[in-house]
Amino acid sequence: FSGCGLGERLTALVLSFRSPEPLDPGCLLERDAERSADRLGCAAVDFPVAVVLPAGGSGERMGLATPKQFCTILNRPLISFTIQAFERLSWIGTVVVVVAKENHDLMLNIVQKCNHTKAKVVHGGTSRHRSIFSGLQAFSSTTDSLTPKPKVVIIHDAVRPFVEEDLLLKITLAAKEQGASGAIRPLVSTVIATTSEGYLDHSLERAKYRASEMPQGFLYDIIFQAYQRCSEFDFEFGTECLHLALQYCGTNAKLIEGPPTLWKVTYKRDLAAAEAIIKETLSMSACIIAGAEAEAVELAKALQKNLNMMETDVIQCAKESNTEYLSKTRNFIHISTTASNFLGTLDMAKRFEDTDHARLYPVVVVWVQLNMTKQSVDSQKTDELTAFRSLASEVIQGNVLLYGIQIDHTKVPEQWERSVERLTQITVALIRDRNAALTGQLLHA
Amino acid sequence: FSGCGLGERLTALVLSFRSPEPLDPGCLLERDAERSADRLGCAAVDFPVAVVLPAGGSGERMGLATPKQFCTILNRPLISFTIQAFERLSWIGTVVVVVAKENHDLMLNIVQKCNHTKAKVVHGGTSRHRSIFSGLQAFSSTTDSLTPKPKVVIIHDAVRPFVEEDLLLKITLAAKEQGASGAIRPLVSTVIATTSEGYLDHSLERAKYRASEMPQGFLYDIIFQAYQRCSEFDFEFGTECLHLALQYCGTNAKLIEGPPTLWKVTYKRDLAAAEAIIKETLSMSACIIAGAEAEAVELAKALQKNLNMMETDVIQCAKESNTEYLSKTRNFIHISTTASNFLGTLDMAKRFEDTDHARLYPVVVVWVQLNMTKQSVDSQKTDELTAFRSLASEVIQGNVLLYGIQIDHTKVPEQWERSVERLTQITVALIRDRNAALTGQLLHA
Repeated sequence: FSGCGLGERLTALVLSFRSPEPLDPGCLLERDAERSADRLGCAAVDFPVAVVLPAGGSGERMGLATPKQFCTILNRPLISFTIQAFERLSWIGTVVVVVAKENHDLMLNIVQKCNHTKAKVVHGGTSRHRSIFSGLQAFSSTTDSLTPKPKVVIIHDAVRPFVEEDLLLKITLAAKEQGASGAIRPLVSTVIATTSEGYLDHSLERAKYRASEMPQGFLYDIIFQAYQRCSEFDFEFGTECLHLALQYCGTNAKLIEGPPTLWKVTYKRDLAAAEAIIKETLSMSACIIAGAEAEAVELAKALQKNLNMMETDVIQCAKESNTEYLSKTRNFIHISTTASNFLGTLDMAKRFEDTDHARLYPVVVVWVQLNMTKQSVDSQKTDELTAFRSLASEVIQGNVLLYGIQIDHTKVPEQWERSVERLTQITVALIRDRNAALTGQLLHA
Repeated sequence: FSGCGLGERLTALVLSFRSPEPLDPGCLLERDAERSADRLGCAAVDFPVAVVLPAGGSGERMGLATPKQFCTILNRPLISFTIQAFERLSWIGTVVVVVAKENHDLMLNIVQKCNHTKAKVVHGGTSRHRSIFSGLQAFSSTTDSLTPKPKVVIIHDAVRPFVEEDLLLKITLAAKEQGASGAIRPLVSTVIATTSEGYLDHSLERAKYRASEMPQGFLYDIIFQAYQRCSEFDFEFGTECLHLALQYCGTNAKLIEGPPTLWKVTYKRDLAAAEAIIKETLSMSACIIAGAEAEAVELAKALQKNLNMMETDVIQCAKESNTEYLSKTRNFIHISTTASNFLGTLDMAKRFEDTDHARLYPVVVVWVQLNMTKQSVDSQKTDELTAFRSLASEVIQGNVLLYGIQIDHTKVPEQWERSVERLTQITVALIRDRNAALTGQLLHA
C-alpha cells in the first residue's frame, strides 16, 4: 500500500511473512486432511483434544430472521462448515456444539443430515460465557463415556467456518505448553477512545494492539477452573475467555497470528463473502471425460488448455476403475458426440449418491454434446430434452447439479476457436455459480 | 445474540437504534438522489463542500496484482462506485482523486468512461498523509478556477463504496460546526495489548472504544493548517486525520456512528461482499412488458405474483411513452407469444444506449417466449436462434445483458403452475447473477 504510513506499513510487513490471502482455505479440501495424517498432526498431538463451539446466537446484527450460524450456503448451514473444519482432523475428538434450547432439534437435524459423527449437541446458557461453560461441563460428567475429559480444549465460534489445520495445531500445542493460547489479527481500523459527549478523546497507536480472534486453546483444567471461579458479573457481561484464564488462573495466553480467513461472519455481506470463498475453492479443479472418439478427445484437449486456471485431468470414461478421479474433484465435464449419451452422465450421477461424494458439497456435471452435423440442433427430439431435464431434476435431490451445453463441430478454425472459447466461458460460469435454478438447461456454445 | 455478555449486548443496543443492515445502500439508487434534492441536502448545506479520495494504495493485502480500488465489479472499477456515491449529490462539488503517478492514465480513463464530471485526478505522495495533503493542495492553488477552496472538505477512502447521503450530511454539518468530524463503528473483536514476547498483557473493555472509520469531515482551513504544521514523522508514519486536527489545531472531532456498510474493502472476499450488495440492490425491482395478448398478460400477472420479493410493474409496451418505467429499473422481462418478437427487445436495448441508462450498471433484459403450440421448440429455426444470439452479443457492448426463456403454454393447471414457478426461478437467477457468459442463451422453463 504505497500511500500509507507506519501503521499500515507494519501490517504489511507482518502479512508478508505469509503467502497472499489463501484462495483455498485448506479446510475445504479433503486432500488437506489426507496430507495431515502423514504430517505433523497425529504425531505431535498425542493427547486428547476436544472442541467447544458456542452457537447460541440469535444473529440480530445480520438483519435476518435466521441466526447467522444456521444461514445456508450451497444449501448447507454455515455451522456445518465450521464443524467439518474440525471433524476432518483425526487428532480432534468430540466437537461440543452449544445451542439455545429452541434450536436443539434443528441442530440435531443438521448433525444427522451432514453426518457429523464427532458432534455432540448440548443446551447453552443465557450469555456467551454461560454457554461455553455448559459446553465444558459436558466433559466433566463422568457418567457419559462418549465424551472423556480432554487434555486441551479448543474454543471457537460457530460463525468462523475457515479454520486451518496449521493454526489449530499451533493453538493446541501452545495451549498444552502455556495453559492458554489465542489467535490474533492486526487491527484494520484505528481504535479511538471517546469522551462521554461523543468527541474524540485520543487514538491508540495501532501497531501496539491486536484484535483478539478465535480459535483459542486451553488446558481443560485451567479454563474449567477459571469458569468455576469467575463472578456472576463475568458470566453476564464478559466475552473474552483469555481474560478469564488470566484473571482467575494467572495464565498469560500465548498469542498466535492467524490468517485473514479467520474473520467472523457478522453481517449479511459476510455470508456472501463466505459463499464466494467456498465456491472458488470448489472450482479449482475439474475432470474432463472424453470417450474415445477423436473429435471428443480433441475438444477435451482444447477445453483443458482454455481452463488453465483450473487443475484438470482428461480421462476416457467414468467406469469403476476411475473412482480415484471421481473422488478428487466435484466438477465433471462429460463430452460426447451422441445425443443420447447423457446416459453415461446418469451413471456417474448415480454413483455419487452411492459414494456420498455430494453430501457436503454439490457436484457439478456439465454434459457437453458435440454436434457433428449442422442439423442436430433442429432435429433434437423434444423427448430427449424432456428426459435430460427430468434426469437433472432427479439427481439434484442427491446434490448433483446437471447442465448441458451443445457445441457445433466445424472445420473452420476461427469459428471453432470462438465456439470453444464460448464453451469454456459457459462451463466456468456454471461451475463457479453452482446455480440450482439453471440445472437441466441445454445451453449453446 | 442470546449467548453473549455485555460487550456484545451493548453493541446490539447501539445497533438497535438503526434499522437492520440495509440490503440496499441508498447510494446505488437514483431515486435516493432524486429524493435528496427535495430533502435536507441542498437546503442545509449552503456552503461549498469538496471531497478528497486518497487512492494511492497498491492492494498488497488482497493478494492481487491489481490495486483493490481498480478491481472491477460488474465490469466497473470499485473506485468508480465510490466517486459516484459523492457525485450524485448536488451539494457536493469537486471530488479530488489522488492516485500514484503510474495509475494516472488508468484513472483518467475510468473518469472518462464512467462520465465522472466532478472528478479531478491529482498525483499522490509516498504515504497516506502525503497523498491527502496533495489532494488538499489542489484547492489552494488560486490559478485554477475549476477547484475553488471549499468551506468543508470530506476525506474518504477509495475502497469504501457504500456511503450514504444521510451520513455525509451529518459529517459535513458537524465539521462545519465543530471543525472536525468522523464516522465510527463499534468494535467487532476485543482489542488486546500484547507483551513484547507475544503474550497477552491485557484486554481493553470493548464498550469504551470505537473503530475510527471514514468518511471524516473538516473545515478546510483547519485540516490544511494541521498538514502544514505536522512533522515529517507524522507524514511518514501517521494514518489518522482526526489525530492531526487534534494535535495541531486543538480540534476534538465530533464522532458519528455509521452503518456497517461503511466497511473497507480490504481482502479479496470483501470484493465478493461488495459485488453481492450491488447485485442485490440492482435486483430489487423489475418491469414486465406483456403486450396485449391475453395469454401474455395472464403470464405477466402470474410472474408478478411469484416475484413478490421484487417491486414489479406490468406495462403493455416499451414505447417512448413508457420512458418513465424504463428509467426506474435495470431489469426488464419482455413476454411475447410470437417467436420473432424479440425485435421489440432489440428496440428497447438500443434505447438504453441512447439514454445512457446502462452506463453505470448493466441492464438485464429477459425475453420470455410463450409457446402456444407444443411444436414450437422443435420447429424453432436455427436462423432465429442465431439472430437472437448475435443480437445478445451486440447489445452486451452497450452493457445490456440479454437472455431468452421459452415457456410452453398448457391448460393443465398443475403443469402450468410448475412451469411458471420454474420461469420465476430462472428469471430471478438471471437478474441476480448478471452473468455475461450466459447472454444469448435460450433457456426453457
